[in-house]
Amino acid sequence: MIDRRNYHLFQPLLYQVATAGLSPAQIAMPIRSILRNAANTRVLMGRVTGVDRERRVVVADEHEIPYDFLIIATGVRHSYFGHDDWEPWAPGLKKIDDATAIRRRILTAFELAETEADPARRRRLLNFVIVGGGPTGVEMAGAIAELARRALVRDFREIDPRAARILLVEAGPRVLPSFPESLSARAFRSLQRLGVEVRLGTPVSAVDAEGVIVGDERVPAATTIWAAGVRASSAAKWLKAEADRAGRVKVGPDLSLPGHPEIFVVGDTALALDPAGHPYPGLAPVAKQQGRYVADVIGARIRGSSPAPRFVYRDWGAMATIGRNHAVAHLFSRFRFGGMFAWLLWGLVHIMFLAGFRNRLIVLMDWTWSYITFQSGARLITGSSDM
Amino acid sequence: MIDRRNYHLFQPLLYQVATAGLSPAQIAMPIRSILRNAANTRVLMGRVTGVDRERRVVVADEHEIPYDFLIIATGVRHSYFGHDDWEPWAPGLKKIDDATAIRRRILTAFELAETEADPARRRRLLNFVIVGGGPTGVEMAGAIAELARRALVRDFREIDPRAARILLVEAGPRVLPSFPESLSARAFRSLQRLGVEVRLGTPVSAVDAEGVIVGDERVPAATTIWAAGVRASSAAKWLKAEADRAGRVKVGPDLSLPGHPEIFVVGDTALALDPAGHPYPGLAPVAKQQGRYVADVIGARIRGSSPAPRFVYRDWGAMATIGRNHAVAHLFSRFRFGGMFAWLLWGLVHIMFLAGFRNRLIVLMDWTWSYITFQSGARLITGSSDM
Repeated sequence: MIDRRNYHLFQPLLYQVATAGLSPAQIAMPIRSILRNAANTRVLMGRVTGVDRERRVVVADEHEIPYDFLIIATGVRHSYFGHDDWEPWAPGLKKIDDATAIRRRILTAFELAETEADPARRRRLLNFVIVGGGPTGVEMAGAIAELARRALVRDFREIDPRAARILLVEAGPRVLPSFPESLSARAFRSLQRLGVEVRLGTPVSAVDAEGVIVGDERVPAATTIWAAGVRASSAAKWLKAEADRAGRVKVGPDLSLPGHPEIFVVGDTALALDPAGHPYPGLAPVAKQQGRYVADVIGARIRGSSPAPRFVYRDWGAMATIGRNHAVAHLFSRFRFGGMFAWLLWGLVHIMFLAGFRNRLIVLMDWTWSYITFQSGARLITGSSDM
Repeated sequence: MIDRRNYHLFQPLLYQVATAGLSPAQIAMPIRSILRNAANTRVLMGRVTGVDRERRVVVADEHEIPYDFLIIATGVRHSYFGHDDWEPWAPGLKKIDDATAIRRRILTAFELAETEADPARRRRLLNFVIVGGGPTGVEMAGAIAELARRALVRDFREIDPRAARILLVEAGPRVLPSFPESLSARAFRSLQRLGVEVRLGTPVSAVDAEGVIVGDERVPAATTIWAAGVRASSAAKWLKAEADRAGRVKVGPDLSLPGHPEIFVVGDTALALDPAGHPYPGLAPVAKQQGRYVADVIGARIRGSSPAPRFVYRDWGAMATIGRNHAVAHLFSRFRFGGMFAWLLWGLVHIMFLAGFRNRLIVLMDWTWSYITFQSGARLITGSSDM
């Protein structure tokens, strides 16, 4: 197992680190500890820079690691659709360091607003723009709204944090486009109830130091968060493999690279098609099932038995949360519901999927505490500020 | 209240963040939250750059804040005794960002050792040098020893983390020089039992990228931690006040600046003398009692009554912990003891003094968990690596 980080990150809760609800260590677990009892595993921290398909070695830093089977699960980074110059002003949320940087920006904006005498500059500091209405964008917008309207509300003297404007911008016609339309509508209403301004069908045409141009309106904003698009890792380049526009590696029905049955690509960085020929979405459950499937395939090949010829995703459902007491859930491609029950289910499922009993217990305690007191647990500004 | 951070930090537990035991948010609390219910307070996040004693204003960033009374409690930074070029190779431990940087170095050293084939370079990666045998140095050395000998021991395949050499270097004749000699001896034995090599009466004569020169031995080490000396903040410069060699502001018996009864200096950045003419040590209890005393003085002056004419420190005692189950305690200048009971008392007192019930509860849980499982709770390598 080669990773450039020493920990496994539970990405679905990363937005809570970015909005000061949880600490990084609560959603991350050392990879070595996870694999401690698997005596036939080795863990290396290193940055992969290439794969030599002919000699069957992975190049990581100055090391060459030989393989019989290779599984690539290197995920995605955010993508600015050709506007990479927007990145400094609109950071995305994929890594822990992204999350603590966004947390620093959000909290610093309120701090600077408290000492800012000029109304226009104060307004800009209290404007938060989230670009992208998928689950990450919706959850970020909801969490920032709760921070401003609840956790911070009694801590400032000069400003009223409730005056913060939280603007969620989505280029398409609805939020949560991967969910059924009725749930998108429900999420839209929940966001509005939280005080989030949702702008649909409106692309962002510019992002710079001053703010964002949304449709034909210039919104001055000190904090813009990018949750709009992703681009696959460099895996296609390493493998010299065919990829789609987003950089995802095209794989066969058994998730192996065409012509290379010993190389598999899984998760967000793979372009795998379902039996109807549609690509599987970039979701954690897809990646997890793909991982298990490939393990079974390799096991079967080693034993000499014949593996299941194609990966089929079993869709148990999807959920997204919109602040306190609200979530939407779409289960077994059939049940659709929202509100308090969906929110409790969301919490339960996310606690369950966290790695490590200690993390589960502590996150549960932190959530309970925050729920009762309306306070958030990790309101620290760390690292150097760039505002 | 002006601070350049948005949080109050409980420094006595900072070494546990540096050694992956606790998360930063568990020992820090937003200043705004602490003062939320004091309606006549205002909190500003800002960097103080000067004080104008005549116009009675504090300059912070581009703001000028007028005062009637001014209390300066800006603490200390570590000091390299004229060898500031050692700092990149031997970081000190005063801020949260220091702690996460040291944590990154320690954990990265083990990760790199795991993939290092050259025995000499591997040896260097597994050498840890702590310079300074005061409470911070002793606690750091103990915590690194426990990390290497317990928490990490089953996670590596190529190296045995127990082979790590932890070297505590003290220029003076004993560790914990501010404690009675019998407790220094006891701490020395506890450190040895933990596998820490203690070098007494040996100054460090050089620190560079390769390691440290201790006495006349060159110790190659990838990780060196500085816990040897401190230098006061720039307060004396701001105030154009008289200071000692360490930069501490000389104050009168009531902790006010001579000639400026409206300016007080407290804590580590003040040079205050006890009735016998000895300077008070730079300890948290001294600072806390000084804060309370100055509050009383100001209150009395405003009311027109006469305040206590001089600050007198009431010494309840001091403690230091040396790994699991071991601590030394010196209470009421009379009782001296060590071992398990001192360790339990140390834990109890530190939990009590943490700000915020939530932090108390979560730290207690984390400690209990670590005690039972021998695992540490925050083994994350975050930020960019410089090794």
